[in-house]
Amino acid sequence: MTHSETLAKAGLTEAELSGGTLAVHSPIDGAEVARLKQTDPFDMPAIIATSQEAFQIWRRVPAPRRGELVRLLGEELRAAKDELGALVTLETGKITAEGLGEVQEMIDICDFAVGLSRQLYGLTIASERPGHRMTETWHPIGPVGVISAFNFPVAVWSWNTALALVCGDPVIWKPSEKTPLTALACKKIFEKAAARFGDDAPEGLLQLVIGGAEVGEALVASKGVPVISATGSTRMGGVVGPKVAARWGRPILELGGNNAMIVAPSADLDMAVRAIVFSAVGTAGQRCTTLRRLIVHKSIKAELVEKLIKTYATLPIGDPRSKGTLIGPLIDQGALDAMQTSLEVAKAEGGTVHGGGPVTEAVPGGAYVAPALVEMPGQTDIVKKETFAPILYVLEYVGLDDAIEIQNEVPQGLASCIFTLNVREAETFLSSVGSDCGIANVNIGPSGAEIGGAFGGEKETGGGRESGSDAWKGYMRRQTSTVNYSAELPLAQGIKFDV
Amino acid sequence: MTHSETLAKAGLTEAELSGGTLAVHSPIDGAEVARLKQTDPFDMPAIIATSQEAFQIWRRVPAPRRGELVRLLGEELRAAKDELGALVTLETGKITAEGLGEVQEMIDICDFAVGLSRQLYGLTIASERPGHRMTETWHPIGPVGVISAFNFPVAVWSWNTALALVCGDPVIWKPSEKTPLTALACKKIFEKAAARFGDDAPEGLLQLVIGGAEVGEALVASKGVPVISATGSTRMGGVVGPKVAARWGRPILELGGNNAMIVAPSADLDMAVRAIVFSAVGTAGQRCTTLRRLIVHKSIKAELVEKLIKTYATLPIGDPRSKGTLIGPLIDQGALDAMQTSLEVAKAEGGTVHGGGPVTEAVPGGAYVAPALVEMPGQTDIVKKETFAPILYVLEYVGLDDAIEIQNEVPQGLASCIFTLNVREAETFLSSVGSDCGIANVNIGPSGAEIGGAFGGEKETGGGRESGSDAWKGYMRRQTSTVNYSAELPLAQGIKFDV
Amino acid sequence: MTHSETLAKAGLTEAELSGGTLAVHSPIDGAEVARLKQTDPFDMPAIIATSQEAFQIWRRVPAPRRGELVRLLGEELRAAKDELGALVTLETGKITAEGLGEVQEMIDICDFAVGLSRQLYGLTIASERPGHRMTETWHPIGPVGVISAFNFPVAVWSWNTALALVCGDPVIWKPSEKTPLTALACKKIFEKAAARFGDDAPEGLLQLVIGGAEVGEALVASKGVPVISATGSTRMGGVVGPKVAARWGRPILELGGNNAMIVAPSADLDMAVRAIVFSAVGTAGQRCTTLRRLIVHKSIKAELVEKLIKTYATLPIGDPRSKGTLIGPLIDQGALDAMQTSLEVAKAEGGTVHGGGPVTEAVPGGAYVAPALVEMPGQTDIVKKETFAPILYVLEYVGLDDAIEIQNEVPQGLASCIFTLNVREAETFLSSVGSDCGIANVNIGPSGAEIGGAFGGEKETGGGRESGSDAWKGYMRRQTSTVNYSAELPLAQGIKFDV
Amino acid sequence: MTHSETLAKAGLTEAELSGGTLAVHSPIDGAEVARLKQTDPFDMPAIIATSQEAFQIWRRVPAPRRGELVRLLGEELRAAKDELGALVTLETGKITAEGLGEVQEMIDICDFAVGLSRQLYGLTIASERPGHRMTETWHPIGPVGVISAFNFPVAVWSWNTALALVCGDPVIWKPSEKTPLTALACKKIFEKAAARFGDDAPEGLLQLVIGGAEVGEALVASKGVPVISATGSTRMGGVVGPKVAARWGRPILELGGNNAMIVAPSADLDMAVRAIVFSAVGTAGQRCTTLRRLIVHKSIKAELVEKLIKTYATLPIGDPRSKGTLIGPLIDQGALDAMQTSLEVAKAEGGTVHGGGPVTEAVPGGAYVAPALVEMPGQTDIVKKETFAPILYVLEYVGLDDAIEIQNEVPQGLASCIFTLNVREAETFLSSVGSDCGIANVNIGPSGAEIGGAFGGEKETGGGRESGSDAWKGYMRRQTSTVNYSAELPLAQGIKFDV
Repeated sequence: MTHSETLAKAGLTEAELSGGTLAVHSPIDGAEVARLKQTDPFDMPAIIATSQEAFQIWRRVPAPRRGELVRLLGEELRAAKDELGALVTLETGKITAEGLGEVQEMIDICDFAVGLSRQLYGLTIASERPGHRMTETWHPIGPVGVISAFNFPVAVWSWNTALALVCGDPVIWKPSEKTPLTALACKKIFEKAAARFGDDAPEGLLQLVIGGAEVGEALVASKGVPVISATGSTRMGGVVGPKVAARWGRPILELGGNNAMIVAPSADLDMAVRAIVFSAVGTAGQRCTTLRRLIVHKSIKAELVEKLIKTYATLPIGDPRSKGTLIGPLIDQGALDAMQTSLEVAKAEGGTVHGGGPVTEAVPGGAYVAPALVEMPGQTDIVKKETFAPILYVLEYVGLDDAIEIQNEVPQGLASCIFTLNVREAETFLSSVGSDCGIANVNIGPSGAEIGGAFGGEKETGGGRESGSDAWKGYMRRQTSTVNYSAELPLAQGIKFDV
Repeated sequence: MTHSETLAKAGLTEAELSGGTLAVHSPIDGAEVARLKQTDPFDMPAIIATSQEAFQIWRRVPAPRRGELVRLLGEELRAAKDELGALVTLETGKITAEGLGEVQEMIDICDFAVGLSRQLYGLTIASERPGHRMTETWHPIGPVGVISAFNFPVAVWSWNTALALVCGDPVIWKPSEKTPLTALACKKIFEKAAARFGDDAPEGLLQLVIGGAEVGEALVASKGVPVISATGSTRMGGVVGPKVAARWGRPILELGGNNAMIVAPSADLDMAVRAIVFSAVGTAGQRCTTLRRLIVHKSIKAELVEKLIKTYATLPIGDPRSKGTLIGPLIDQGALDAMQTSLEVAKAEGGTVHGGGPVTEAVPGGAYVAPALVEMPGQTDIVKKETFAPILYVLEYVGLDDAIEIQNEVPQGLASCIFTLNVREAETFLSSVGSDCGIANVNIGPSGAEIGGAFGGEKETGGGRESGSDAWKGYMRRQTSTVNYSAELPLAQGIKFDV
Repeated sequence: MTHSETLAKAGLTEAELSGGTLAVHSPIDGAEVARLKQTDPFDMPAIIATSQEAFQIWRRVPAPRRGELVRLLGEELRAAKDELGALVTLETGKITAEGLGEVQEMIDICDFAVGLSRQLYGLTIASERPGHRMTETWHPIGPVGVISAFNFPVAVWSWNTALALVCGDPVIWKPSEKTPLTALACKKIFEKAAARFGDDAPEGLLQLVIGGAEVGEALVASKGVPVISATGSTRMGGVVGPKVAARWGRPILELGGNNAMIVAPSADLDMAVRAIVFSAVGTAGQRCTTLRRLIVHKSIKAELVEKLIKTYATLPIGDPRSKGTLIGPLIDQGALDAMQTSLEVAKAEGGTVHGGGPVTEAVPGGAYVAPALVEMPGQTDIVKKETFAPILYVLEYVGLDDAIEIQNEVPQGLASCIFTLNVREAETFLSSVGSDCGIANVNIGPSGAEIGGAFGGEKETGGGRESGSDAWKGYMRRQTSTVNYSAELPLAQGIKFDV
Repeated sequence: MTHSETLAKAGLTEAELSGGTLAVHSPIDGAEVARLKQTDPFDMPAIIATSQEAFQIWRRVPAPRRGELVRLLGEELRAAKDELGALVTLETGKITAEGLGEVQEMIDICDFAVGLSRQLYGLTIASERPGHRMTETWHPIGPVGVISAFNFPVAVWSWNTALALVCGDPVIWKPSEKTPLTALACKKIFEKAAARFGDDAPEGLLQLVIGGAEVGEALVASKGVPVISATGSTRMGGVVGPKVAARWGRPILELGGNNAMIVAPSADLDMAVRAIVFSAVGTAGQRCTTLRRLIVHKSIKAELVEKLIKTYATLPIGDPRSKGTLIGPLIDQGALDAMQTSLEVAKAEGGTVHGGGPVTEAVPGGAYVAPALVEMPGQTDIVKKETFAPILYVLEYVGLDDAIEIQNEVPQGLASCIFTLNVREAETFLSSVGSDCGIANVNIGPSGAEIGGAFGGEKETGGGRESGSDAWKGYMRRQTSTVNYSAELPLAQGIKFDV
């Protein structure tokens, strides 16, 4: 299919795709596929005001009814799965299976949020005073600003939006400048759902703002947007977090990961190899949860590295739309350059690099690379950094405590895993003295979370949680209430104060 | 009892109380009661390192065993209740009943935390993949810096410490420079408990740092202290929050309140009067939850104000240790001056001030004032500010929606309440379109929370939650884990990636 | 539409509807609409064995995948809403709006259960032993026998089935002998969903058994059916409960209600009248939650009774399919006779009966009645019994305590409510000294529960809970697990036992 | 210490211990130590009425205040630990460490219940109707009858009582006829706590009834006792359960176990041996969770059996009060006879018996036995029965699936465990296709649960849960409430019914 056909199938019109100043390229071949109009930063106050007005209405709509809108959104996503998946592939360069998987994740979170819409459980709490009842209730908090990244251009938006909507909050979405087309398509899908839903959905429930830093900054700075959910680099999050905090907003940050796998002597090595390869090279190494560090027991390191080198050599690199391709392009040439630079640094720090070079015989115009396996003498500075590309550093350990220390030694704290068949090793890794990451798995890779769990991590990963568990609480405000229905006025802690 | 006797009964020795540079005065009579040694800011790295070492040990101690330490702490607090209560009175000037109430709150939170120590519930979660189990576990996070304020010099510390300890975290406590003596006494009480507890409690589990801004800043700035729980002014929190965020720490902020009561036509007025007086003048108006704004229905305003003026005239002001006193001194002369300034501004903005002047016939040396009732023509600028003194602004409303809008119009979001006997009004006030505060009560004042509920509020109150409900999660890190115990490696969202 | 057309539209074929021995009549006109084949009691062991085999497979299917089947079931129900609703009307005689409402409830529970399928939350629990982790997990328990009643012939089945399916349990459904047709139709709708779902759904996941007491008894008696969820009369439940208990099964009983409304002096009387009428005469008084007792404050009793009599006189009685009809027929002549008998007894016990007679000018062949309002001198024996017909007994009270005592004095404990605008009355009614029912409402009638809450009640109502909240736990078994991953073997409670 | 001294130290007076008709013997030496007065069955209605009156008061006492009584009870138990532990040893024959461990468990549950007393969490739930709030609240339910067994004469009472009391329920306790003395002692300890607690604790909050079947039956039969918590044999529970169900009460049954351990090839055998011995012979095999079946992988069976035989030979049998003793007497001669009979049957069914004979050289008058290890050719009838004595049947398996099938093949479902170091085996055992028991452990024995988890099991174990997690809900009634605070009256499921 040509790019134009993909765009058209996803419902984007020529008028929408042209006439603007933001050039959008497909990483598949570097072709410019659109010139989008950008949001004028001067319009941001009005956009935020519209969101606030929508909030006044939406928070009064009962949550199960709000859930119905999300259910319809899920239906529309199901109907548009193939087309939207193809657009994701077009715009991010991820392979077809992953493009579809991303849409599936959107569908899953909608289903989940529909269920939540009849829960949003607070608590009734035993009060110490006779004739008093105490409760904790969760209320809508207001507009949510969603700043999403190019690598999951729509799934992360859907995580935030499905929850925000059932929680009673409108959304203002600023997608990555590199992936505004999938955002446009989602906006239209949402509008279909909203049209079916009817009048209860106010104008401005979902607004899309397209553009660069200034547009994002307007969201970050505005008191009218109490929640900012931002996904991206630690550098970005390090700016956004304090700014939002400074104006009394609530940041939900999903930032960088430097995700590791410990491979223990008892590991099922064949399974480990498959997990490593998917985790390290899937999405061309551009997942926040991509496997970046392999911490292998000394006794099996040689064998494992050999297997990996052998497997790496067989991985089909090329057009992500082609059946069989497992590694598509990087997002752009800048990413390729950054990867090469990191590999140079790694060599300088003592690393032995396998693979990692540009693949010029793939689709012309795209930034294709062979994934790199880098044997390192230790956890040097470059290993502690997140390079958003398929580089896997291999380190060696002897005792499990050492392996865990290596795993925890980096500033990021997103995802981690261990491959072992030993109960004691597995449980230690998951315990209070184990991995310090928000995600810690056993016998599966660090990437590919289910939406039922809370997603996120500590340290420079930013501390936010999205998706499952009680992540929805991040989109609401908590209220502790005590109702005195007696004719007395006792004080807590038995204080007497008789006037 | 003389100050010296009170200090001695609370277990403080002459050696501890002298030889330093921090002068401590009793607000009762302004007398200097101690000169404490201050923590050298250069020692802070070592103190934090000690806390980190303690953490390495403490996090391995099973939580129910950690709970046993907190249980013993509760026992010691029970045993020391009278003496510690008297010291609170000496150092803060709050009346005896409130001093004892504060200690009771410490005891209550200990009991609560002991129960938590066998819970700290995470989740098991249904996984979408066969042969996989998914869980969410809560682990200790590391040293907690507690920065407390003068007005609840020990209760807020105990909230944080009881939870932090059962959660597996050591504590570094920086009390207000105005109230270090109660901190010293608590430290000694804790040490008694720790001695009974035995060897499982590492050195440095609780450290006390005494001093000013520099000492606090060292905590705020250090990556070695992942959680900073700070109670105090919005100004302070506005500095601390972004700084902690900037170094990837987690702030728990309990800042200013500008707490209101709506009094509806159906209110039980006698009950309301009692609630208003306690909430507005208790602790001499120096609670974060002190009632500062009274939003009264037009039809009953005259009657209510008259009752209040009459009651205010009868309130016993003076030595907080004396039986019968209901209003003790402000914390210092600066507080008195700030109050007078606010009253001047209120007048300039159209207010009619009843009372509010200094009470010179009370104990010499203390900053005693009559509580002020200020009828305002509307919610002017001064009304939107928190003056930490017994000033109660009276406003008028006609429709409930207006009343709620007035209530929500201020930048703070801590506590609020309504007095009404009408179901519709009460429930509307508690609903998503009602109060925007963290605490919203019906037929009780805004102050005097039970420890079973989560305490805190949104907006400039800082967003933190302490004490009951799941506030303990603020002291732990969350881990989402998936364990694959099958011999297959399915991917989430049904993605296929066959290498 | 003719009955035949309604049956055909609902997908029932001539072959299915004839050739058997169970005559099915429509209460609308008494016409026989089918002769169904009945399940041979001798086949029950094989049916149960099939269910057990299905269980072996189904429990291994991940819960979110099981949820997908329920999602598809919800989709099919949405598609078939009108036709199934019409069939409910045909078979039970309830008016069209209620027939559709019942199907909507099925749809709602499916949505809710889909969300649950990614939760089914157990707990991780802090262990007192180092190197140990403790969890509580919920596992599928086995086949669930669902015995449903005629008045909600399909909604109650869907409550049980949606939950059972996501919980991993097959279902064997025995509908009321009076309403097997809607069951047949649901079975076919389920099969459509299962066909779309594919091979993961084993044969026998849902089995329908049609027939009388012997068939039900086989379910009740079998160890192969660990859960029996039975809805119906207290008499039936009083037999089923002990039998299931005796063979170590788990009964979930939803039995009779004798539901009351207290009307306080402050009540919004117009609202109360509407609530009373819907609750008392809706579904011709044949809901388990039908309002049967009105406990009115003396001061307003005359006025309220007058309003009710006036309103009762205007209620359109007749063909439930006709637009405007609010009261359709009773289920059969037996129900009509029982109603008349109860009214006679009520008179004998001092009651003044308004209305309540047969309505012969409605559709010939149907058991139509005018709803009865019966002023009683006190809570006599007949008032304490549940007559499944539109009889509303009116009682009088003076103090709220008395009203609550009257409310609680009956053996049933399902639903209750109060109409009052007074906070103290409302909260007292909901408190530990208030209503003893499983459902207690304020300013809405006792009937018409949302699926998000747990449905059921104590005392002779049977104690079961279905639908929302954690009712799903009734369909699973709980497992408490401790994993020791240390190399030590400490005992709980610090016991030493050194061999 | 003489028996008399032990009794006196535990606070029992001569007057209490004599003059009655119930002879109490110590299993240590068979000596009669008391003749207790028994409760006259004719007094039971009055006792129950007193409990009901206490309930009217106690349910109004705020839960945290009720918790304070339990806290004081915990304090008194701590103070009386040694004396009460010694009395447990005297009356049950369990060794000193276990007697003390039992008291520790009582203390633990008190601490836990105190924490619960500020929770007893219900839910606030999102309502589908505007202007409505929905909640689920837990209320006190009424008197709880506790029927306890001889083997944990006081711990099980404390589990029930600590929870019942914080939940607002009075308790009527019928201890085993074999162990009324520890009950008497506990009653007195409770009274001390109640006296310190003061007037809020009504008369009759805890009542003790002493006697046989008739007294128990009165509890079981009475509608005045809504909850019956009964611990004991499956035979007893099989009578009690249906009877309580038949009068609409709620049974909480903790009945027999036939607890197994699977020992896999990868097991840490030394650890397994220690766990097996404690689990199989501790409390002379008279725990509900005693290990009764050993399912060993073929490859290690010979080695393990040899180790066990060797260890069994060294176990000190004798006076439970003596330092070093690990196996005390059986409860009485009847138990010894039953054990011998079972061993005979086992032999007849093909078993090879090691040990198991009476130990006459121990304390005269006591029923001392050597623990028996019985190698069985398969899981014969006798193996499927619970003989309350130290008999451990050894079975052999090849595949894990077989082992699990053997484990699940018995009618009981209490406790189970696996010893393995293999992740896949461990997790499979804990999964939906693993153990069907309420308790399933890895690398620890089946006995010795912590109080933080829910205790109990399915099948003939009775289905009840006590102690931790949400077991407290068994002592309360659940109320689902919807409050309409709007001026509209919408119906759920969108039904229209306009009168």
